[in-house]
Amino acid sequence: MSYEALFYPKSIAIIGASRNIKTVGNDVIKNLVTQGYTGNLFPVNPKADILYGKKVYPTVQEIPERIDLAIIAIPAQFVPDALVQANEKGATAAIVISAGFKEAGNADLENQVAQVCQERNITLIGPNCLGIINPEIKMNASFAGVMPIEGSVAFVSQSGALCTAVLDYALDLHVGFSKFISTGNKAVIDELALLKYFAQDEKTKVIALYVEQLENAPELISAVKELSLGEHAKPVVILKSGTTQEGSSAIASHTGSLAGGDTAYEALFAQAGVIRAHTIGELFDYVQVFSKNKLVPVENITIVTNAGGPGVLTTDAVINSGLHLAKLEESTIHKLQEFLPKAANTHNPIDVLGDAVGETYQKTLDILVQDANTDAILVLLTPQSMTEIRKTAHAVVHSHYYGNKPVLASFMGQETVHPGMKIMQEAGVTTTTFPEAAAKALGVFSKFQKYSVREKSEVLKFDDVDKQKVADIFAQAKQNGKTSFPEAEALEILQAYKFPMLKSKQAKSAAEAETIAKNIVAELGSETTFAMKIVSQDILHKSDVGGVMLNVTAKEIKEKSQELMARVARNAPNAKLDGVLVMQMAPKNGVEVILGVSKAPGLGTMVMVGLGGIYVEVLKDVSFGYVPITKNDANRMVTSLKSAKIFEGVRGAKPSDIDMLVESIGRLAQLVLDFPEISELDINPLLVLPKEEGVRVLDARVLLESHVS
Amino acid sequence: MSYEALFYPKSIAIIGASRNIKTVGNDVIKNLVTQGYTGNLFPVNPKADILYGKKVYPTVQEIPERIDLAIIAIPAQFVPDALVQANEKGATAAIVISAGFKEAGNADLENQVAQVCQERNITLIGPNCLGIINPEIKMNASFAGVMPIEGSVAFVSQSGALCTAVLDYALDLHVGFSKFISTGNKAVIDELALLKYFAQDEKTKVIALYVEQLENAPELISAVKELSLGEHAKPVVILKSGTTQEGSSAIASHTGSLAGGDTAYEALFAQAGVIRAHTIGELFDYVQVFSKNKLVPVENITIVTNAGGPGVLTTDAVINSGLHLAKLEESTIHKLQEFLPKAANTHNPIDVLGDAVGETYQKTLDILVQDANTDAILVLLTPQSMTEIRKTAHAVVHSHYYGNKPVLASFMGQETVHPGMKIMQEAGVTTTTFPEAAAKALGVFSKFQKYSVREKSEVLKFDDVDKQKVADIFAQAKQNGKTSFPEAEALEILQAYKFPMLKSKQAKSAAEAETIAKNIVAELGSETTFAMKIVSQDILHKSDVGGVMLNVTAKEIKEKSQELMARVARNAPNAKLDGVLVMQMAPKNGVEVILGVSKAPGLGTMVMVGLGGIYVEVLKDVSFGYVPITKNDANRMVTSLKSAKIFEGVRGAKPSDIDMLVESIGRLAQLVLDFPEISELDINPLLVLPKEEGVRVLDARVLLESHVS
Repeated sequence: MSYEALFYPKSIAIIGASRNIKTVGNDVIKNLVTQGYTGNLFPVNPKADILYGKKVYPTVQEIPERIDLAIIAIPAQFVPDALVQANEKGATAAIVISAGFKEAGNADLENQVAQVCQERNITLIGPNCLGIINPEIKMNASFAGVMPIEGSVAFVSQSGALCTAVLDYALDLHVGFSKFISTGNKAVIDELALLKYFAQDEKTKVIALYVEQLENAPELISAVKELSLGEHAKPVVILKSGTTQEGSSAIASHTGSLAGGDTAYEALFAQAGVIRAHTIGELFDYVQVFSKNKLVPVENITIVTNAGGPGVLTTDAVINSGLHLAKLEESTIHKLQEFLPKAANTHNPIDVLGDAVGETYQKTLDILVQDANTDAILVLLTPQSMTEIRKTAHAVVHSHYYGNKPVLASFMGQETVHPGMKIMQEAGVTTTTFPEAAAKALGVFSKFQKYSVREKSEVLKFDDVDKQKVADIFAQAKQNGKTSFPEAEALEILQAYKFPMLKSKQAKSAAEAETIAKNIVAELGSETTFAMKIVSQDILHKSDVGGVMLNVTAKEIKEKSQELMARVARNAPNAKLDGVLVMQMAPKNGVEVILGVSKAPGLGTMVMVGLGGIYVEVLKDVSFGYVPITKNDANRMVTSLKSAKIFEGVRGAKPSDIDMLVESIGRLAQLVLDFPEISELDINPLLVLPKEEGVRVLDARVLLESHVS
Repeated sequence: MSYEALFYPKSIAIIGASRNIKTVGNDVIKNLVTQGYTGNLFPVNPKADILYGKKVYPTVQEIPERIDLAIIAIPAQFVPDALVQANEKGATAAIVISAGFKEAGNADLENQVAQVCQERNITLIGPNCLGIINPEIKMNASFAGVMPIEGSVAFVSQSGALCTAVLDYALDLHVGFSKFISTGNKAVIDELALLKYFAQDEKTKVIALYVEQLENAPELISAVKELSLGEHAKPVVILKSGTTQEGSSAIASHTGSLAGGDTAYEALFAQAGVIRAHTIGELFDYVQVFSKNKLVPVENITIVTNAGGPGVLTTDAVINSGLHLAKLEESTIHKLQEFLPKAANTHNPIDVLGDAVGETYQKTLDILVQDANTDAILVLLTPQSMTEIRKTAHAVVHSHYYGNKPVLASFMGQETVHPGMKIMQEAGVTTTTFPEAAAKALGVFSKFQKYSVREKSEVLKFDDVDKQKVADIFAQAKQNGKTSFPEAEALEILQAYKFPMLKSKQAKSAAEAETIAKNIVAELGSETTFAMKIVSQDILHKSDVGGVMLNVTAKEIKEKSQELMARVARNAPNAKLDGVLVMQMAPKNGVEVILGVSKAPGLGTMVMVGLGGIYVEVLKDVSFGYVPITKNDANRMVTSLKSAKIFEGVRGAKPSDIDMLVESIGRLAQLVLDFPEISELDINPLLVLPKEEGVRVLDARVLLESHVS
């Protein structure tokens, strides 16, 4: 891909440059000419001579030099030809601003565009987009009027119109961009491709995306995990819309794309380590804190305030964000006491009192940046009579520059504090209008930093599985047009993937049942009771015909199995009976969980884990992970359950064998990766026994996709 | 109380008015003189002659006229005398700005102030406060420099310093106040007193409070419920800090008051119908939406946008706020199609496209205010090339004035959209910087409106209880120094309050046991099995000595009770055995819940309800209500449980007898109201049977406060 030609072109053709102001074709050439781009510009338009001082060419062919990048803003049907012509003039990158493709029902035309780009290896942004901006070279190749400041944030938006608002918010907060991209319909270049580019791009330190729909969860997960690892980890912040059904259908009418449910995206973001912003405001808070501060460990926060109430509110917000108030060093407290008034609070949150002037803040901050127990500082100010807003702002800036730890500020109010906020924003201090948002952003910062230093975790893979056996079972099933595998057959499939089972065997006679029971007792080396279930192709609901008996001892089993057979024969006289399944009774000291498989269209296959039982069903306490699944992924799935504490052992119970639960998740992931034709699979329940006693599959069911040939 | 003298004084003495600028005593007289107050002002200071053109009096006594209100800003120890002197000059209201009372460890001095006020019937704000402002008469009796605009919001803050920030935020958003009060230490007038005043105050339509600590939950609940009922309901919005333990201890150092845990406040706010703001930002969003819009039912929202992405984001926010997107009338859609471009989306969210001008918005809004299916409109704008920000703002204002339904707006961006935001704010339109906040505020608005039209609910009260019996039990216990009532005795107490019990009776012999069992079967009119428990003062753990048998039939009971007695006699040869308790076995088709009692210091006594079982214990799924409890309260407690769905009947179970659960909550509330000496009480479990089958107490325990004499 020619990202160099896209982001750093030496010459650009603007195909569809227009004389008519307030049109897209005019805005683009105007922005390129007037906002500082220094490369060659070749406007193309058969009806113009000169535009913004640049000679206009009637056709692409007539451009006298080689071009790197083509920006296309002509009616949709002419776009494929324009791409060919531009490519013949050397362009290896293109931006198609024109609308009228998939979003207008013209998917064929869009496919045609994609095909031209594929054949000719053209790096294409769009169609139906606002364009791109590279502030580093002052290239505004978009119809947004504003040149943002240069910085370290790569912003990517699926909504072009949102970009104009984002540019305006960003200017206000002095957030700078490395690259600014409106992706439009993503015919060629999508978020995944851009993430891979930003991984290499030295100018980019933070990646922020607005998306309505994504594809290929496994690759996205892998790309984001890679980005977010190590000392130079780059956080990926995503604002995803269409989280509700109504939101999703609004998208459908908007970009013609089908959004997945929010569960699928929640799982994707959690597994990848994406920082999810839930509002535009949060997006900016997170982008600020990551782009304006060095990624250092942050756990203990010190608050400085000239007002008690806001100090308390912010303390709450700090704690609720998963952070702690720093316990200041004794020496810090002494130094503060030396100059602060007696009524001041020299313990965290530090209240310098309402009459604090700029110098009070300055001295306090000078001491706090030296405090070894303080990882980050949050400075609050309310505008009181003695308050020196500008001087205090400069004190914050000073500690931000030289303090070597994140310093965030919220000067509370609007007009009155505005000059101070401006001073801090322009100097690169993270600011928020209300202090709670700063605390929340610090919490996210801390969490990401911890994530960035994690151990890399490998995909769970087991060599002891019998893949061939399952392949044979499925092959035979397909021959017979069979897609459903209830209990016994499902257990056979799982057994091939070495899921631990209860011991069981089918008996054809009462005598055989007794032998099986005795053998199981011998194998286990301990007593057990048994469940017996009738085996018959003709009986759907075993219990209804008296075909199930529980808690039978080995001694009773011969007699009881005769009783069972006779009872079923009476109740279902026409059924052909094949014998009884003799199965060890399940231990009583386990926690029941459910494992399952769910397919997220366009994104991938998810494995689900949830706690069993009626309460959890009501509370929908489940978590998901996309295959393939690493050990970390599986652990996260388990520990992120709301009721995960149950595995630690409550009411005197022993802790559960989580290792074997994690292994089971891995085995299930491997099974569905090996056999994508599995459309549904439930292991319900999987019994998780106490530590070192493993797990047992008690029941399961498997369904294949019927259309797989 | 002389609120007239406090808020509408005709003459004010400023005791401690000062020449030294940037002091509190100077700020107050300056604010009163220069910001438009037209009553008589009498500065008092022995060392000054004239202050801001007003004659200064050396002592209060020398003021030549009667005064209504005294503002006091002199050292704490002189305050009680000053109050007396002011009162003798006629003042029936006072504001003590001076600090140095409870917050500085001088609780005695504060009590002295309170006593003077009580004796002389002085309505006192403070001490240790910023003062009050009444914009209606341009009276700034505070040391905050800003006169807010007049409006319908009564703002009350326990933090004086927060007030200065709030005034600044409010000016920016054009939020106007009816009264603005810094309560300080609340020695006399607290939030409860002010709520009662605002209920009568015609200028106040919305009440907003910042609090760190409250007292007397039952009275607050009653006051807020009263305020929030009917056509002219006044919403009470509260920002409460100190929700975390760390936050609470910050308060302790700040105002010297002890904060209750957040559970106690959550329960208080939920029961009262308080609108809880979790951040300062939310406080302003809610205050805006209530003060700037008429309280009408709002369920179905229509979004108008010139950008698809923000439309989708806002749709999500609308749905997540508990609201719906309006399904527009057919005629509305037709009218929109007549003038909007073909590519526009004329279904909700309405996308007027990026090139929409002011007139496009105007026409669209004119149609939407007529749409019968639209309860409220949310207008979004992103600044694009063709966008007319001011014209669009005027279109929004027009629909706000004449549309007769709430119209909220979020013009996205900062500098660029600022002129439009100002136009709308000044005209009284509710605006938010980011659109999600507007959606959330509308959700809160809708919820409050529904609450305001509720039926009034009476306190649950039962005449069939035997209060005397419980009084006798407790009286005797106190005589014996006994405070703990396990199982049997606790059941006796609950039985006196007519909690449904399992049938049980103590038998002295095997023959009697059989008779009891037969009688129970006869009474029930159906078969049942029985539990038998040994009765002996000498046996603590009945199970340990084989003293419990379950599932015994009436036929077996004679033999089994002999067996039980013999077994216990063998195992505990020294114990004196008094017989066996014969108890009907509990039905198996019930849902186990826990009822309990919890005391919130300073606030009141709460009854707790939660679902039983191990999962719910892990998930801490419980809810609370203060006594006394109405039927609505008890219903809310039950339905607000996360797992409340279980009562509807899941997995084929029948719906539970919620009516009897609600009644049980009421009976428990009555019991703890009647006997405040109960310090702890658990009914665990209470079995809730299917509809019309009632509930049963299976076990309980009661503890009395040991220090109650």
